Amino acid sequence: MSHTVELLSVGTELLLGSIVNTDARDISEMLTALGLNVYYHTVVGDNPARMKAAVALARQRADVIITTGGLGPTCDDLTKVVLAEAFGKKLVFHPQSAERIKAFFQRIGRTMTENNLQQAMLPEGCTVLDNDWGTAPGCAFQAGDNYVVMLPGPPSECIPMFRERAIPWLAQLSEGVICSRTLKVFGSGEAEVEYLLRDKMNALTNPTLAPYCKEGEMELRITAKAADQDTAQAMIDPVEAEVREILGTKIYGVDVSGLEEVVLRELKARGLTMGTAESCTGGLIAKRITDLPGSSAVLKGGIVSYTNEVKHNVLGVPADLLEEKGAVCAEVARAMAAGARRVLGCDIAVSVTGVAGPDSDDRGNPVGLVYVGLSAADADEVRELHLAGTANRRDRVRQHAAHHAFDMIRLYLMDHPVQN
Amino acid sequence: MSHTVELLSVGTELLLGSIVNTDARDISEMLTALGLNVYYHTVVGDNPARMKAAVALARQRADVIITTGGLGPTCDDLTKVVLAEAFGKKLVFHPQSAERIKAFFQRIGRTMTENNLQQAMLPEGCTVLDNDWGTAPGCAFQAGDNYVVMLPGPPSECIPMFRERAIPWLAQLSEGVICSRTLKVFGSGEAEVEYLLRDKMNALTNPTLAPYCKEGEMELRITAKAADQDTAQAMIDPVEAEVREILGTKIYGVDVSGLEEVVLRELKARGLTMGTAESCTGGLIAKRITDLPGSSAVLKGGIVSYTNEVKHNVLGVPADLLEEKGAVCAEVARAMAAGARRVLGCDIAVSVTGVAGPDSDDRGNPVGLVYVGLSAADADEVRELHLAGTANRRDRVRQHAAHHAFDMIRLYLMDHPVQN
Repeated sequence: MSHTVELLSVGTELLLGSIVNTDARDISEMLTALGLNVYYHTVVGDNPARMKAAVALARQRADVIITTGGLGPTCDDLTKVVLAEAFGKKLVFHPQSAERIKAFFQRIGRTMTENNLQQAMLPEGCTVLDNDWGTAPGCAFQAGDNYVVMLPGPPSECIPMFRERAIPWLAQLSEGVICSRTLKVFGSGEAEVEYLLRDKMNALTNPTLAPYCKEGEMELRITAKAADQDTAQAMIDPVEAEVREILGTKIYGVDVSGLEEVVLRELKARGLTMGTAESCTGGLIAKRITDLPGSSAVLKGGIVSYTNEVKHNVLGVPADLLEEKGAVCAEVARAMAAGARRVLGCDIAVSVTGVAGPDSDDRGNPVGLVYVGLSAADADEVRELHLAGTANRRDRVRQHAAHHAFDMIRLYLMDHPVQN
Repeated sequence: MSHTVELLSVGTELLLGSIVNTDARDISEMLTALGLNVYYHTVVGDNPARMKAAVALARQRADVIITTGGLGPTCDDLTKVVLAEAFGKKLVFHPQSAERIKAFFQRIGRTMTENNLQQAMLPEGCTVLDNDWGTAPGCAFQAGDNYVVMLPGPPSECIPMFRERAIPWLAQLSEGVICSRTLKVFGSGEAEVEYLLRDKMNALTNPTLAPYCKEGEMELRITAKAADQDTAQAMIDPVEAEVREILGTKIYGVDVSGLEEVVLRELKARGLTMGTAESCTGGLIAKRITDLPGSSAVLKGGIVSYTNEVKHNVLGVPADLLEEKGAVCAEVARAMAAGARRVLGCDIAVSVTGVAGPDSDDRGNPVGLVYVGLSAADADEVRELHLAGTANRRDRVRQHAAHHAFDMIRLYLMDHPVQN
C-alpha cells in the first residue's frame, strides 16, 4: 500500500513572509525519493485553535503527518502539545533528552535557562529523534493508522534530522529500501534531453527515471526500490549505463552539487591550478569556486576586468583590438584567458566577455551574446553563446556563462586523464 | 473589519520538492504590509479533486483566497476551472487577453501554439489582471463574502503581478491606504537595535514599526494606514526621524535592496570609481556590485588574490610581509587595497583577507577573523572583524565581510558630499 503524506509547518513567521519554507521543499524531495506521496503542504501560525483544526484535517486526508517548527523553548512547545492531545498521548519527561540539551549548552559555552528543559517533554511511548544540531529533540510515533513525525523548524536542524533520524524511522512504511542516483547534465537544451529520453522514462517503472530542471542545468534521477541496498544499486547501474550511452559527456557528474564541484575535484586529482578573467560575470566564476571549501588548492586568483582599461593594463589585451572590435568578441575572450594565465601563473584560465543586459552594448551587441575562453599550455578555445531568457535575464546570462566556463574546464580535463 | 487570507499554491512540482514556494513568502510579506492577516498557506498538486476540496476548505476558513500556479497552457488551466466552478462562474473568452498573448509571443520571437489561447478564458465578470511578464493573465473577483485573486506560478510573473495588479485591487479591502517605508540598517548587532527600539515598537500602533532580520542586515519597516497617501506619508515622517535620531548613520538607505545599491548610486553621484582586492570573499564583492545594472559606470575591476603569489605579483603586497605575518592581518588588507587602487586605476578600492572556514588557517587564525581595507587618495582604513555563526558559516563569513566592505565605501562617501 502506498502511503500519503501531509507536511504541516508551524510558524507565524512563515505566514508573515519573514522566511521561506525551504524545509517543505527539502523534505518533500526526500519523501518523493522514498516513494511516499506528498499530497499537501499546510502552513499554520503559532495559534493553538487553528493548529488543532489543521491536525484534525491532516489526519483525515493523509496517513503520515510530518510537522516542522513549534518545538522551541519560546513556542510553548505548541506542536507537541497539540499533536499529543490529538492522538491521546501524554507528554512525559525524557531524562536522556534533558541531558543532551544541557550538554549542548555546555558545548557552545552558553548558560541554559530552565525553560529549555521543557523541550525534553515528549509524547509517551514515542521514538525520540535526537537532535545533534540544536536543542529541541524531535519525535515519531504511530497511532492507529497514522504515523506522526515532529521536527524542529530551523533548516540547519530540520534537514539533517530528517535525513539521519526520520528517514530510518519512515523506512518501515516503505517495503524494502529506496535508493536514488542523480546524474547531472549540462550541454545542449533540456528539451533535447527530454526528447531523447522520453520513451525510456515512460517505459521504466522500477527503477524510475525522472528529469528535474535547475537553472540551466538538468538532473536525471534514477530511483530503485528493492529488498536491500545492493539489489537497488544493481538495478540502477544498467539504467545509468543506458542514459550514458545516449547523453555521453553531457553527464558531468553523479550525486554532485554542480559543475564547480567536479572542476575542483578533477583539478585537485591532477595537481593543476586555475584562474579567471571575468568581464560580464563580474567575479561570479571565482565566487562560485570559492564557495567550496578546499578551493584554495586549485584557484590561484582572478581578474575582474570590467573596463577596457583593466583588460589592457592588467590582462594585456591589445588596445587596438579593443578599439577596433570592442570588448565583446572571440579575440578578446582569447586574449583575456591568455593574459589571466600569464598574470596569475595558473595552468588553466577561463575568461568571459559579453552583454549581460539589461541593455545591448554601445556597439549594438545584443543581450545574451557572450564569449567564453579557455587557455592552457596546449589549448586555446572560445565558445560563442547566445543566451536567452526573459525574466531576470541579467542574472541568467551571468549564471549560464559561468556554467559554460566550468564546463570548458571539465571537458579539457577529461581530455587530460590523471597520470598514475 | 479585518480580513483573513489563505494562500493556495497549485503545483505538483512544489509537492515533489522540485521548487521552493518563494511566492508564498513574498506575497505574505506584502499582504502583511497591507494589513491583511494570512492564516494559512496550502500547497496542493495538479489534481482536480484535491484542488476542489482545498478551495472548499479555504473559503470556509478565510475570506480572501489568493491562488498561485495552474494557469499555464499545459496545466489545463486547472486553477481557473476549479475556482470558477466553486464560485458558480462560467469561463468566457477575453479577446484583449488573447491579443496580449499573441503580442507577447511576437515580442520574444517565438511561434505561438494554439493551446496558449486557452489562457484567455477567464471567469465572467472578473477583473482581468494583465500579465506584462509572461503569457497567462491573472484575474480577481468577488463572490458573496469571498474575494478571489488568481496569479500565475513562476515568481518572475507572480510577484510583479501581485505588486502591480493585485495590490491595487485588494486595496478595496483595506479602509484607506497603507503605505510602508523600509529603513535598512547595518552596523552593530541586531539585538542592540531591537533593544534600543523595543519600547518604541511596542508603543506604536499606527504607524507600526517592525524589525526584520536578513543575512546580517536589518530592516525596520514603518507602516501607516490613512485615508490617503499624503496623510500616510506624513505619519511615517516623524517615526523615521525618531528612528534616525537613535540609529544615526547605521541607517544606510530607505527602500533600497542592499548596501551595494547605495554604494553604486553614491559613487555615480560623485563620478567616482571603485575596485576590489578579494581573498576569502573570492569575487563576491565584485559579483554583488555587478549584479546591478549600471555597475559598469563605477566598477573598474577587481583582483581575486586567492594565493600569496597573486597578492604579491599582481597587487604588490610585499613578500616579506606575507612571509612574516601571513596573509590574514591588517597590514596585508591595507597593502591589498592600495595595490588594487594602483593596478585598477580606481578612486576607491576595498580589500578583504580572512579565514572563511570551514577550518582555521595554517597559522592558527580562527574561522571568522577577517580584515577589510579601504584605500583612497585621502583614506587608508582597516576593520578587524570576528564573524560568528554556526550553520553555513563559510557562506555567512563571506557575505558579512562583503557587507562591511560596502559599508566602508558608504561611510567614506558620506564624508565626501556631492559637490554642486
